[in-house]
Amino acid sequence: MPAKSDRPLFIPVILGTARQGRQSEHAARFVFEQTKKRAGVETELIDVRTLPMRLDDAGEQMKDAAFSATIERCDALIVVTPEYNHGYPGLLKHALDMNLKEYIHKAVGICGVSAGPFGGTRVIEQLLPVMRELGLVTIFEDVNFGRIGSLFDKQGNLLDQNLIRRLDKFLNELIWMARVLRYGRENVAPV
Amino acid sequence: MPAKSDRPLFIPVILGTARQGRQSEHAARFVFEQTKKRAGVETELIDVRTLPMRLDDAGEQMKDAAFSATIERCDALIVVTPEYNHGYPGLLKHALDMNLKEYIHKAVGICGVSAGPFGGTRVIEQLLPVMRELGLVTIFEDVNFGRIGSLFDKQGNLLDQNLIRRLDKFLNELIWMARVLRYGRENVAPV
Amino acid sequence: MPAKSDRPLFIPVILGTARQGRQSEHAARFVFEQTKKRAGVETELIDVRTLPMRLDDAGEQMKDAAFSATIERCDALIVVTPEYNHGYPGLLKHALDMNLKEYIHKAVGICGVSAGPFGGTRVIEQLLPVMRELGLVTIFEDVNFGRIGSLFDKQGNLLDQNLIRRLDKFLNELIWMARVLRYGRENVAPV
Amino acid sequence: MPAKSDRPLFIPVILGTARQGRQSEHAARFVFEQTKKRAGVETELIDVRTLPMRLDDAGEQMKDAAFSATIERCDALIVVTPEYNHGYPGLLKHALDMNLKEYIHKAVGICGVSAGPFGGTRVIEQLLPVMRELGLVTIFEDVNFGRIGSLFDKQGNLLDQNLIRRLDKFLNELIWMARVLRYGRENVAPV
Repeated sequence: MPAKSDRPLFIPVILGTARQGRQSEHAARFVFEQTKKRAGVETELIDVRTLPMRLDDAGEQMKDAAFSATIERCDALIVVTPEYNHGYPGLLKHALDMNLKEYIHKAVGICGVSAGPFGGTRVIEQLLPVMRELGLVTIFEDVNFGRIGSLFDKQGNLLDQNLIRRLDKFLNELIWMARVLRYGRENVAPV
Repeated sequence: MPAKSDRPLFIPVILGTARQGRQSEHAARFVFEQTKKRAGVETELIDVRTLPMRLDDAGEQMKDAAFSATIERCDALIVVTPEYNHGYPGLLKHALDMNLKEYIHKAVGICGVSAGPFGGTRVIEQLLPVMRELGLVTIFEDVNFGRIGSLFDKQGNLLDQNLIRRLDKFLNELIWMARVLRYGRENVAPV
Repeated sequence: MPAKSDRPLFIPVILGTARQGRQSEHAARFVFEQTKKRAGVETELIDVRTLPMRLDDAGEQMKDAAFSATIERCDALIVVTPEYNHGYPGLLKHALDMNLKEYIHKAVGICGVSAGPFGGTRVIEQLLPVMRELGLVTIFEDVNFGRIGSLFDKQGNLLDQNLIRRLDKFLNELIWMARVLRYGRENVAPV
Repeated sequence: MPAKSDRPLFIPVILGTARQGRQSEHAARFVFEQTKKRAGVETELIDVRTLPMRLDDAGEQMKDAAFSATIERCDALIVVTPEYNHGYPGLLKHALDMNLKEYIHKAVGICGVSAGPFGGTRVIEQLLPVMRELGLVTIFEDVNFGRIGSLFDKQGNLLDQNLIRRLDKFLNELIWMARVLRYGRENVAPV
């Protein structure tokens, strides 16, 4: 058994909507706080509302040094995203497209948010081809924040304790995959 | 056989990217010009770069009176979009999400654009759930502008005449579906 | 306003799984019975378990005269399908691929079934590209039979009366679209 | 740097169609032969036409000891599949659904086959949610066998030598991911 890398895993949480009145912010903050509690994990909350994007350009041409460095440094990502018209928020995709090689061979887990009962199942499916093309490995655990309005109160306090257990399972899988892929990036030579 | 509505069909073309140096603009202008030639069809070119969108909001809250009125008035849409990382451009989705009921029971056709050989096949697939949720009917003809760099010269002149025939087939189907759905909206009572 | 075609609409219901112990059969029978009650609608239940398919072939080469004639005659389809591993049952696709031109310009509505809470949302999304390529128009109303085990008792009696209202809304939209597309097939010349 | 597991990687190739006259067989045999040449890799060709499936059942209830043992033993899979009506062949899905836990934390690469120019891009996208739910990690390299009729002669001899290079890149990535995930399964404790 090899010595594990001693550095903590770096797993930022991306809040994928800039919409005024967004309820996904409660979900993202909850995910961020729970991730922060994990031993050996560093995290930070990235809000697409504060990324330096533009309305007259797209893609790597909008590359931002700080965001790029964060993605470059990360071992995994958590994306917390509402579902808009069965797809992803435009600004989430606008943000994801700002980087390219920074994502390769890292893990990602997706938390879907919806007002209705289905917890963003459809936006999760839609993100799979995008994540794959970016070089990310999407884990097979999700968190579905369905009926978001009844999961948190207006101050963002959690009302449904089952989510803690659900998120724990998700984080367990994400951390496992992040460790495995970091081992691969650092120790397994390209073929 | 009933008298057809005498108004021309209104079928705007949406250029789905704001990226600097976008080659999809050649494709969109070509589609727009060919659509304009059709008898009984009015069109206009909608450029997502000029829509009044915001980076700190999303959805119907950004609703713009002029864009909303255009969609309300249209009988069908043509979306010309590049494929970014196997998905749709963020700003295209950001724009589509600005309207809701305006889309219902209208037709849409999608033209995919890519630098590589596959002509945006993947972005077309990704848009299907979104179009459906908006209430649009996506026709089963597409136009695939693959290897866009060799289809037009730098001034936007068409280099591959096969596209005219391909686009004609697409427009035939779109116009048929637009007529049928307009008949339905105007003459078939909700059940 | 034109005279409507006087023939009833023909809208078969396809049960999309052959799995032993399938709970989707309750859902399909419920959908079939409710469809049968609609004035001006004829229906029949098609069970993929009884279609003459083969394990050493696929596609139109397995074409069956009776199934082909049923699809040819129909104005719309209802597909009731469970979700297996986030996709469609293999035998449902095996069956759908047996016909081709018979589907063109007809309507389809999809009812998703799952043991868990999400009611087949993912299988519905997966079927959209297939339905479109077949020439079918997928309506934007779905029925989601989530937690199927609690929606019907073992004899198939409905336990959740909300489904009647939900299915009614779905049938309303499907019948509307079936009428509109039939009008189109019969009265609007190809462009 | 830890000692690598000395066992060869086991990477079977699945031919995903049973259709009479299938041209995908040429592609699958080519992929199989090239995979066999790789040092440190064992392979075998699995033909869905010879799997013991049934038309009156589905899923793990059809579990076959030999197929299950093959999947259990494998480190990665290669799926060679045509695209039928923009989706996967029914019998491929019927076969994949026969196993469940055997797939977890293994790699998969997908080769798409089509008569037309797009090389199965759409069937690849459709398989992503299925592969993920099975616990497989789909690599981000594909091989697209477009215009299959011109890539091989009738005896199955390769006519386009570019495919060797393309497949090499795919196999490099698949072998890398298979090694990394095997390391993970064997050495990284569940969290």
